[in-house]
Amino acid sequence: MKRLSILFFIIYSCLPLWGEELLSPDGRLKMTFGLKGGDTPVYSLEFDGRRVIDTSRLGFRLNDGGMHDWFECISIERTTIDNTWEPVWGEESQIRNHCNEMTVFLRQTSSDRRMNIRFRLFNDGLGLRYEFPIQNSLRYFVITEELTEFAMSADHTAWWIPGDYDTQEYDYTESRLSHIRGLLRSAISDNLSQTIFSDTGVQTALQMKTDDGLYINIHEAALVNYPAMHLILDDKTLVFKSHLTPDPNGDAAYMQSPCNTPWRTIIVGDEATDILASRITLNLNEPCKIEDTSWIKPCKYIGVWWEMITGKSEWSYTNDLLSVHIDTDDLTSVKTHGRHGATTERVKQYIDFAAEHGFDAVLVEGWNIGWEDWFGNMKEDVFDFVTPYPDFDLPHIETYAKSKGVKMIMHHETSGAIRNYERRMDKAYSFMKDHGYDAVKSGYVGNIIPKGNNHYNQSMINHYLYAIEKAAEYKIMVNAHEAVRPTGLCRTWPNLIGNESARGTEYQAFGGSKPFHVSVLPFTRLIGGRWITLPAFSK
Amino acid sequence: MKRLSILFFIIYSCLPLWGEELLSPDGRLKMTFGLKGGDTPVYSLEFDGRRVIDTSRLGFRLNDGGMHDWFECISIERTTIDNTWEPVWGEESQIRNHCNEMTVFLRQTSSDRRMNIRFRLFNDGLGLRYEFPIQNSLRYFVITEELTEFAMSADHTAWWIPGDYDTQEYDYTESRLSHIRGLLRSAISDNLSQTIFSDTGVQTALQMKTDDGLYINIHEAALVNYPAMHLILDDKTLVFKSHLTPDPNGDAAYMQSPCNTPWRTIIVGDEATDILASRITLNLNEPCKIEDTSWIKPCKYIGVWWEMITGKSEWSYTNDLLSVHIDTDDLTSVKTHGRHGATTERVKQYIDFAAEHGFDAVLVEGWNIGWEDWFGNMKEDVFDFVTPYPDFDLPHIETYAKSKGVKMIMHHETSGAIRNYERRMDKAYSFMKDHGYDAVKSGYVGNIIPKGNNHYNQSMINHYLYAIEKAAEYKIMVNAHEAVRPTGLCRTWPNLIGNESARGTEYQAFGGSKPFHVSVLPFTRLIGGRWITLPAFSK
Repeated sequence: MKRLSILFFIIYSCLPLWGEELLSPDGRLKMTFGLKGGDTPVYSLEFDGRRVIDTSRLGFRLNDGGMHDWFECISIERTTIDNTWEPVWGEESQIRNHCNEMTVFLRQTSSDRRMNIRFRLFNDGLGLRYEFPIQNSLRYFVITEELTEFAMSADHTAWWIPGDYDTQEYDYTESRLSHIRGLLRSAISDNLSQTIFSDTGVQTALQMKTDDGLYINIHEAALVNYPAMHLILDDKTLVFKSHLTPDPNGDAAYMQSPCNTPWRTIIVGDEATDILASRITLNLNEPCKIEDTSWIKPCKYIGVWWEMITGKSEWSYTNDLLSVHIDTDDLTSVKTHGRHGATTERVKQYIDFAAEHGFDAVLVEGWNIGWEDWFGNMKEDVFDFVTPYPDFDLPHIETYAKSKGVKMIMHHETSGAIRNYERRMDKAYSFMKDHGYDAVKSGYVGNIIPKGNNHYNQSMINHYLYAIEKAAEYKIMVNAHEAVRPTGLCRTWPNLIGNESARGTEYQAFGGSKPFHVSVLPFTRLIGGRWITLPAFSK
Repeated sequence: MKRLSILFFIIYSCLPLWGEELLSPDGRLKMTFGLKGGDTPVYSLEFDGRRVIDTSRLGFRLNDGGMHDWFECISIERTTIDNTWEPVWGEESQIRNHCNEMTVFLRQTSSDRRMNIRFRLFNDGLGLRYEFPIQNSLRYFVITEELTEFAMSADHTAWWIPGDYDTQEYDYTESRLSHIRGLLRSAISDNLSQTIFSDTGVQTALQMKTDDGLYINIHEAALVNYPAMHLILDDKTLVFKSHLTPDPNGDAAYMQSPCNTPWRTIIVGDEATDILASRITLNLNEPCKIEDTSWIKPCKYIGVWWEMITGKSEWSYTNDLLSVHIDTDDLTSVKTHGRHGATTERVKQYIDFAAEHGFDAVLVEGWNIGWEDWFGNMKEDVFDFVTPYPDFDLPHIETYAKSKGVKMIMHHETSGAIRNYERRMDKAYSFMKDHGYDAVKSGYVGNIIPKGNNHYNQSMINHYLYAIEKAAEYKIMVNAHEAVRPTGLCRTWPNLIGNESARGTEYQAFGGSKPFHVSVLPFTRLIGGRWITLPAFSK
């Protein structure tokens, strides 16, 4: 892949008071950056002269002071980026990355701290991120609040789900922005772990439509070692403020310079399809970090799970244990309740079905010990990821699947016990490779251990990527369920094949979702990764 | 080792209202258990007719109700234990375990929950613990508070240090119990991580002396998967109440039945030396779990550390980095500040000195990258435990030490970043074995990551043992610095050679400790493990 970049550098000694403009390559989008009141960074965005984002603040609160005013502009750099790259998988063989870039180098006069804001303006939207160069006065710092705003120009229609630190599995609500507060409580459905934080908090990707037909989508790209961003609406001013998932101490992010935040993205288009066609999210992620990607092959699979979801069988094996001690219990001496789904015979039926109907693989949930009391107990040693139930003959199934040309997909439910999963991860991945499994569906049902953590805080974001990177070492593909909504990381780590980070097909067994649900998902959940696993129903 | 046990079982249908007595084998100690008010478990202890512990409560608060009243006694079992066992190392080749045991089987009538209290009365003291049999109404439960009391009969003299969730490195204060409140604030010295929780909170092992010459020592044994216990004195009644180190949510312990608490121990004697001679703490721990112990060999060693403690050299290598990124920085291209202690030449001098003067091994601190900004930044990826500084020629030192018949001791400072250590532990231990290291000194300086945790809560207690068990897999001996005070676990895991869990020799460089400090340690810190590392000074 040849990189074609044309670079322009224009250095300013000082920023004009009226703002510094950046145009998209086609000139239709215009981003304006300025220092409001002479010291407070702000930006705005126009599309064909129509306001997309009104003047909006940029900056942070740190635990030792603000990083949102007292700024002076040291210089500005401009570049045009134009190259193409080849995704390891997906609908396209090549993706064009074409934008005008402007980096504003700021210095806070009160603290002598430096912060740069990098803007990339594509024909279909804007990405902006904060960068902190290494410096004496900002080596390690704690972000308590990100102040990035997205000021809406009018009371748009939005497709939104409630902001939550622990779940993304909500039905979408279509409403005016001004109606979010009134509708939010009724938009909350039960989940096994959920933490609502605001009456006007919503999740990204947030899809909006203006009354004059403009489509606006707000999300983030390249969420690495930073908490996931939510949006809280000030419904008097129609300004969205970013809101980061806090850690157990109430802080947002621990940072070490040099470092940067994820990209904040605003996709804009005349047509709804423009939103879907945008590749901003992938383009703002880093190139692939896996050298040999030959083993990464998306596939179609069926799974032994729907029959458990619908209550026809169980993940668990027995009713005879009051509680399970995975490291010491011997389940071969325990009577089964006879409703275990993942039996050898049943799995072989699935393998036969897959082979017959053109599915590449079979996922099996409930194959491993621990499901008798896996949920709701804040139990740390909940699964060991290597011990099958007595009626699941793993070597036999391995051989049988191979004979039918069907791959087996591993299942690692963690029950939110992160330390337990990380401690056992090497053995679990080794076990997979020893038995011919190249892909794992992981799960994070329930409240997180270590206690006090939520699914989308910095520490957990770190974990999800740790699991992906370690999987890559073992040449294992990952589909993470209940992990954070994707932000295009599958470009950098293409072994992150999928993310079930939405209200999925399983809800068809729990009363269903709204009729428009799967038609809204491409504009919301799928913005961060164009692929979602929609497992086929069992026969 | 031959086990000699004489068992007596006496089953009562109901407990006498006046209490049930248990005598020590020599009859001098008498423990009385009863249900105060007919339903509240209490105990007391006498020695030759003198009150050691006045009537004291037993029980818990759980997050869903109390476990301290509404009890009825279902039955009582009595046993005599008399056997000897052979410690893997230590002063003695055999240790006698001789006590009378009484287990009280209780049922809470209000909840139908069962709890047993097991008492073991030795000639030199009492051990008691709570046991929770597996039961429908108590499968998983959360202890918010342990209510165990130790009621003193008079205003004894005590040797105490302030109760703290994060450090044990205080000077001892000798005072009347009633003076603790007035003296506690002045007994607090600075530490890099410290969390005082009460004006009358003290740590165990707590040594006391009565005015009529009785010596009483309160501690705990076999602290496994449970928070460390502190004592808070009610100085109006002179009753100590147990206080467990909380988790980030403010809870104390997450339990899964069947399970038990650590033993609460009260050592009693006419002479101070009786306290030192007691083997209660070891006897109350489980037998050795390591099959082949031939590789476990305590040794005398010197260390490259005192010159850093005194400021003559540094752990770090360079001043040229504002912050270190251990996974990407290349220190070979960075200029050293010239004050790095752990250089090849310097370490060889230590090896020579050890060989010449009869020391078995050399510990080297500051050998690995990361010390430039190892502390105070809540930095997670602080050390990798496998990359030496450019001026520490590890293979050369390995060869040189071997040629001199000297062993090298590894150093793993974690800086309290627990997840980082656990993630890298396998590689770190493998690296040790690859390079001939059989022992590691680990360290836990500073506040704990994951944030919100303290050094002595349940999650951290779990970690310390995880590190010991995993080290045993690799045949590695551990001396853990800043880990929790020992509770006799070295019987079960004799690869836990030492614990620097006290104000150690290093304080001689920080202004010194009180003159009586090392004469008090055997009665306090060393109760839980008879061995403390007192590293030799550098030459």
